[in-house]
Amino acid sequence: MIIMKSEATREEIANVVKEIKKYGLKADVSRGEYRTVIGLVGDESKIPFSHFAVLPGVKEVMRVETPYKLVSKEYSKLFEEEGEYRVVKVRDIHVGGDEPVFIAGPCAIESKRQLFRIAEGVKKAGAHILRGGIFKPRSSAHSFQGLGANGREEAEEALSWLREAGEKFQMPVVTEVRGETQVDLVAEYVDILQIGARNMYDQDLIARVARKGKPILFKRHFGAGIEEFLSFAEYIAVDGNKDIILCERGIIPVGKGKSYTRYTFDLAAIPAIQKETYLPIVADPSHATGRRDLIFNMSCAAIAAGASGLMIETHYNPSEALVDAPQMITPDELKEVIEACQGIRRLIVSTKKKG
Amino acid sequence: MIIMKSEATREEIANVVKEIKKYGLKADVSRGEYRTVIGLVGDESKIPFSHFAVLPGVKEVMRVETPYKLVSKEYSKLFEEEGEYRVVKVRDIHVGGDEPVFIAGPCAIESKRQLFRIAEGVKKAGAHILRGGIFKPRSSAHSFQGLGANGREEAEEALSWLREAGEKFQMPVVTEVRGETQVDLVAEYVDILQIGARNMYDQDLIARVARKGKPILFKRHFGAGIEEFLSFAEYIAVDGNKDIILCERGIIPVGKGKSYTRYTFDLAAIPAIQKETYLPIVADPSHATGRRDLIFNMSCAAIAAGASGLMIETHYNPSEALVDAPQMITPDELKEVIEACQGIRRLIVSTKKKG
Amino acid sequence: MIIMKSEATREEIANVVKEIKKYGLKADVSRGEYRTVIGLVGDESKIPFSHFAVLPGVKEVMRVETPYKLVSKEYSKLFEEEGEYRVVKVRDIHVGGDEPVFIAGPCAIESKRQLFRIAEGVKKAGAHILRGGIFKPRSSAHSFQGLGANGREEAEEALSWLREAGEKFQMPVVTEVRGETQVDLVAEYVDILQIGARNMYDQDLIARVARKGKPILFKRHFGAGIEEFLSFAEYIAVDGNKDIILCERGIIPVGKGKSYTRYTFDLAAIPAIQKETYLPIVADPSHATGRRDLIFNMSCAAIAAGASGLMIETHYNPSEALVDAPQMITPDELKEVIEACQGIRRLIVSTKKKG
Amino acid sequence: MIIMKSEATREEIANVVKEIKKYGLKADVSRGEYRTVIGLVGDESKIPFSHFAVLPGVKEVMRVETPYKLVSKEYSKLFEEEGEYRVVKVRDIHVGGDEPVFIAGPCAIESKRQLFRIAEGVKKAGAHILRGGIFKPRSSAHSFQGLGANGREEAEEALSWLREAGEKFQMPVVTEVRGETQVDLVAEYVDILQIGARNMYDQDLIARVARKGKPILFKRHFGAGIEEFLSFAEYIAVDGNKDIILCERGIIPVGKGKSYTRYTFDLAAIPAIQKETYLPIVADPSHATGRRDLIFNMSCAAIAAGASGLMIETHYNPSEALVDAPQMITPDELKEVIEACQGIRRLIVSTKKKG
Repeated sequence: MIIMKSEATREEIANVVKEIKKYGLKADVSRGEYRTVIGLVGDESKIPFSHFAVLPGVKEVMRVETPYKLVSKEYSKLFEEEGEYRVVKVRDIHVGGDEPVFIAGPCAIESKRQLFRIAEGVKKAGAHILRGGIFKPRSSAHSFQGLGANGREEAEEALSWLREAGEKFQMPVVTEVRGETQVDLVAEYVDILQIGARNMYDQDLIARVARKGKPILFKRHFGAGIEEFLSFAEYIAVDGNKDIILCERGIIPVGKGKSYTRYTFDLAAIPAIQKETYLPIVADPSHATGRRDLIFNMSCAAIAAGASGLMIETHYNPSEALVDAPQMITPDELKEVIEACQGIRRLIVSTKKKG
Repeated sequence: MIIMKSEATREEIANVVKEIKKYGLKADVSRGEYRTVIGLVGDESKIPFSHFAVLPGVKEVMRVETPYKLVSKEYSKLFEEEGEYRVVKVRDIHVGGDEPVFIAGPCAIESKRQLFRIAEGVKKAGAHILRGGIFKPRSSAHSFQGLGANGREEAEEALSWLREAGEKFQMPVVTEVRGETQVDLVAEYVDILQIGARNMYDQDLIARVARKGKPILFKRHFGAGIEEFLSFAEYIAVDGNKDIILCERGIIPVGKGKSYTRYTFDLAAIPAIQKETYLPIVADPSHATGRRDLIFNMSCAAIAAGASGLMIETHYNPSEALVDAPQMITPDELKEVIEACQGIRRLIVSTKKKG
Repeated sequence: MIIMKSEATREEIANVVKEIKKYGLKADVSRGEYRTVIGLVGDESKIPFSHFAVLPGVKEVMRVETPYKLVSKEYSKLFEEEGEYRVVKVRDIHVGGDEPVFIAGPCAIESKRQLFRIAEGVKKAGAHILRGGIFKPRSSAHSFQGLGANGREEAEEALSWLREAGEKFQMPVVTEVRGETQVDLVAEYVDILQIGARNMYDQDLIARVARKGKPILFKRHFGAGIEEFLSFAEYIAVDGNKDIILCERGIIPVGKGKSYTRYTFDLAAIPAIQKETYLPIVADPSHATGRRDLIFNMSCAAIAAGASGLMIETHYNPSEALVDAPQMITPDELKEVIEACQGIRRLIVSTKKKG
Repeated sequence: MIIMKSEATREEIANVVKEIKKYGLKADVSRGEYRTVIGLVGDESKIPFSHFAVLPGVKEVMRVETPYKLVSKEYSKLFEEEGEYRVVKVRDIHVGGDEPVFIAGPCAIESKRQLFRIAEGVKKAGAHILRGGIFKPRSSAHSFQGLGANGREEAEEALSWLREAGEKFQMPVVTEVRGETQVDLVAEYVDILQIGARNMYDQDLIARVARKGKPILFKRHFGAGIEEFLSFAEYIAVDGNKDIILCERGIIPVGKGKSYTRYTFDLAAIPAIQKETYLPIVADPSHATGRRDLIFNMSCAAIAAGASGLMIETHYNPSEALVDAPQMITPDELKEVIEACQGIRRLIVSTKKKG
């Protein structure tokens, strides 16, 4: 990290950036309230720190050895009094702000009619962002893989429905992009690009998505520790995109015998991650539990734990769904969830203000 | 299971019990609202079910193959309309009732003065039950093992302080019993006997504690699945004691790299377990997270998930504590936690009533 | 699965395939010793089985519900007496045959000189296949990412070194392909395409690699159960490529406290997997343990467990390596490993023949 | 640790021990080849090290902060050139010596006839030590709990059979002791006391067993990391007993979907543990895999990994066994396992001697 003097000029900053590039690294320039900080992207060991310490405008040079630094709270504390609390703006929706944000919709888009009926339902229930899967990662090669599997034309048609539903019901839209070749196409249609849990380690996909410059919903892999999760979010940031919404969606269950939940919902990761990074984090109780009858409680719990929002799979008739039927809730149930969560958030915020 | 006719007489029930004993099994008789059910304790395969089906007063005989049956909701549904929701009564405190119950106090009792000062603090903060460790299970043989390690006399003195503090500040008291030889002594002094996570699989200790007839706080082992947890709670029930308070306290962390929380707090286990058993379940955010700065959020989350109460380690000066210093909170912080949790519980109960 | 009569004609088989395609599925035709079996690729529930049962040449129609079927032993048993034991042929090397196969080389190729010196060393030590990483998946965005990260030209240069070293020292070569856009390029230069552990779930990459028709080294993700591992290998098979070499390389460590090995080497998975599939499986003690001082023992153990070969990172001067230095062994140590492993394999094979 | 001068007298050593006791700690005196070392048992922070440094005969005082020190290799290196490699002697059997040791017998003793028939079989197969369970830890309160559950008389009868079988077939005998009240009784009859995986954390049981002064077979809990495992073995050593045989028997499986093995056999833990401690370690492929068809391979693998022996459940008719039927092998299969393992051990030892 290179911390510039508060009176450093634009030219001095540009000069430091130029010098960094000479050594084969990239520069991440953050202009904060109090000062400008330049993060080094790449292997810092190549840099002669003493050389940089004496460049005009440079106040201090610090070596940072963590695998995540551009997304770390420590980094943002260098240029903001309390550290940045990033609000990711998606159209008029603010993820990471005072109000929790609800992302809802079907697991997989099956037809235009299905999507529109669900979109209408979740909008009425109070959801803010519409989700719908088109390229579905599936455990079995023999299962329904989403409409995206039927070729570019059907994929594009499904994407256009999603776009249209978003406009009709006034919600930004998000869908998962599973492979590199889907990125350009999907980015044309959606407001947020989702990188699913199974692709969390896929740095080539991450880089491709990051460069689109759109907000990214970045899900934790079920086998990933928190350090790994943030280190792969760093791959987005080093490509110049910090509009990252993290998502906790459950980790591998532990213990013998049958699993009562699909994954272990690691809710303590939410406040723990929030101490490490300024990025907002939402939670996905649908995939974490895999059980409709646990969604209400675990949604409330996730918000109480500090999540900035929730992603909840919703269907007017869950048992009809081709994918993830056991974990879908109805729009009516969603409404109840949203209201309870909003109450809990208000209660927690007001306690903290008093506290 | 043997389901008796609603008009079955006391003699008919006694006769069935007698017959069961002939086959080397024990009988668990539950007299419910609508009928009496007799659970078989032991290996059911030894029983000639056809013989029992025709005994006077018997309505139906069912073979149940799960490892937990006496503590299962299915069992309680046989004799209560909606299944029992057991309220474990400890003096005037009801665990499993409408209000969440807060158990607080030091991790380890270090002196009478320390205990009394903390007891006063947690009482003022709104706690209902006082905890304090005397026989401490520790990972290192070279660490402080609690005052109980200094011989029977010191153990008894510490127990008497706990008893006295409970009386002075009007709170029932709980402490952990770690070995079989401690059971009789501890049971003389406390209202609730705790079986710690590390002893969850210790069926000899469980049996010994169960027979004391006092309420038991039974903690989940960090390597145990839900089925195992309930199957070992069953060991308490088969000894005729159903005053069991389950406790989720975190499971083994998953994923590479350093752990940001001491364990993974498995909050979804709380509503999942509540679907399986009528026993109340509380949560222990102190051991689950190991981090003072996460206690507020994770306490709220546990209550939102449906916990009937919380156990929170508290100290007037956390950094002074000989054991678990990093996870202690102060009585003032406890007060804030309790108030927020009570608000969340009310909000959830009222939503469910409307829903 | 559709099992054809032994006397079914080529036309009858072609007709069944045509019918399958009508329903939007694909067909996997396996002509075995005794009969021909046609596997259905896709969602079998769309198929009216009764219609197929009466097509000319069809003997039997079976519904199979497992997520892996084309790679399952059950499938191969339909057309081979004992089930197929597939030998994957790579030039003159046979993976899955009587002799264990050793894949060795540097973790990452750093220079032509480094690669050639190591290639010479491992060849002399008795290795059969040369490995060398060019596109390195790394946990930190700030670490050395392999020469492939420096653009297409450097990537191609490194690939050509690998090719050249393979030819000079007469070993087929393997390197990891990490992203979809690298597939065509890498496939031009190497004999085996490796899909790394982190990409095991990446079905788009898998499909792209599968279609190259070259042998694939397919590594188990550290968070994947055996069922998942085989289900994603199935994604290769459904694209018509069964030249799959599975690789066990360690799973997430369990338990509190520091990890003494980088991952948990799941050696029992080797014989367990060998009961499920006819595909050969090798093991990677370097990544599994992360410790040079454990490589000898764990290599022997993997071969004893039934592995068809090993992949071992080797360097003439381990401490110099830019990546994975703590787990590299020298060519001399490799020689010792290979000799001991060959002895163990002979001993086991001879015991089984006597047994 | 207090390292004495090589010329320190018996009186000087006794004086240091006396001083240690004054501070409420215990002393572990190890007289080695070159010098005497005194380990401090308890909380070292209470000791004024400067005071001890100047006592007569003291060469050096070192503070050691690990949770395991009396069982650590570092400790034994202080008084033996290469560190001790402890051989635990049980009658004429040496565990930890050149030859691998095989412990075999039924999971549970069901009758005298069953035990004797199996004992004869395993003796002929080449086993060295006879096992047989009397107090069985079981997941279900409704399963067969071993003959020990039928009261003291039956327990004692079963123990006397075990003793008698051991004498008749000239094998030392081992059985598990599950609860504190069983220790005295069991110790009267057996040569080795086993502390099972589920009791690994049970420090009161450990202490009670340790004081019997007999060799202890100490199994790793399935949720325990290596550091924890050794830290609880330390509880045996601090009670003055170092005749500890460690046992790896599988840890909790990781990953979604069904488990193909009962636990994950953590074989790399064997050489990793052998670098940390001088205690011998054996492996239990029966419980680790839970599958008869994997025992041969995984036994060979465990020996190849460096295990000093194996514990294998054996029955003349596995399907008849009341407990663990799916993992039993026959005496004939055991013979094949033993021969292959002996061959592998010789091969590895000879490679290492050449190497």
